[in-house]
Amino acid sequence: MLQKVIFHIDELQKWKLLLHNVKNLLSSYENESSEVKIEVLANGEAVQAYASGFDESLTGKMENLSQRGVNFVACNNALTAYKIQKEQLSSFVIIVPAGVRELVDKQSDGYAYIKP
Amino acid sequence: MLQKVIFHIDELQKWKLLLHNVKNLLSSYENESSEVKIEVLANGEAVQAYASGFDESLTGKMENLSQRGVNFVACNNALTAYKIQKEQLSSFVIIVPAGVRELVDKQSDGYAYIKP
Amino acid sequence: MLQKVIFHIDELQKWKLLLHNVKNLLSSYENESSEVKIEVLANGEAVQAYASGFDESLTGKMENLSQRGVNFVACNNALTAYKIQKEQLSSFVIIVPAGVRELVDKQSDGYAYIKP
Repeated sequence: MLQKVIFHIDELQKWKLLLHNVKNLLSSYENESSEVKIEVLANGEAVQAYASGFDESLTGKMENLSQRGVNFVACNNALTAYKIQKEQLSSFVIIVPAGVRELVDKQSDGYAYIKP
Repeated sequence: MLQKVIFHIDELQKWKLLLHNVKNLLSSYENESSEVKIEVLANGEAVQAYASGFDESLTGKMENLSQRGVNFVACNNALTAYKIQKEQLSSFVIIVPAGVRELVDKQSDGYAYIKP
Repeated sequence: MLQKVIFHIDELQKWKLLLHNVKNLLSSYENESSEVKIEVLANGEAVQAYASGFDESLTGKMENLSQRGVNFVACNNALTAYKIQKEQLSSFVIIVPAGVRELVDKQSDGYAYIKP
């Protein structure tokens, strides 16, 4: 069985907890027949952490989780509001036009919603 | 296709971000065949922003979104806790007996849940 | 009809509001034919409130709600991170290996999600 989950973050200070949550969720599926597909959707001030050089420790953890299949997604409205150019983003970051729309579409597609 | 979304707010400081989120969500459906129905449910301290004169800037944005079809709903338990009379509320505000019950009923009716 | 709800808490300061929310939700089903099943899932720093002696007022409210059928659940990853032993927990607390996994499984089982 495949379970799908979208994590929502809009506060910078929540990144550490969120990445810990994602890691624990992945671990909970080890040695199991069911699988999990995880997306992290950042909007508001939280998108700043996607910029290269913002916080090496966070970026390293994101990169590691990205290699384990987690999708890191940025809201383009928020990138514009925080004046972050596409070129400044870590290479694993995916951009969607509107973060809230992504949250709606994914839940409508059966994703569970978690807001740390 | 009709998508339904309920935004939940229980912190006063989140109103600005939430109204921005709602506006961006509405915009994302422009020039599309699918439609969206949006409700904003406020409980806890957040209901204070529904009182006339609390914050003209917020009220103006709410009124504008209300005219675009967004429902602004207040939890009556919270209104009582914050001693806000029905007469003090902006005219577009709808009251429900219990905000949490509204969140449950709407999700059970297929609404996506977003907590900024 | 049976409605199922999972409350998620990961901030200590949100306990008072959350317990108030749970109480109001229970009250909203009084004198109704439909029923509600409520679970409170705590992870992150919020698990500290499950330790006996942490806050007598909160514990008393939890105990009362527990007797009314509410399940209080702790994330074991968080208990380990905050060095809380099983023996320190209030007797009504149930432990799950990973809080985030519980949030996913319950939503997949039809629970509505509320994050105060």
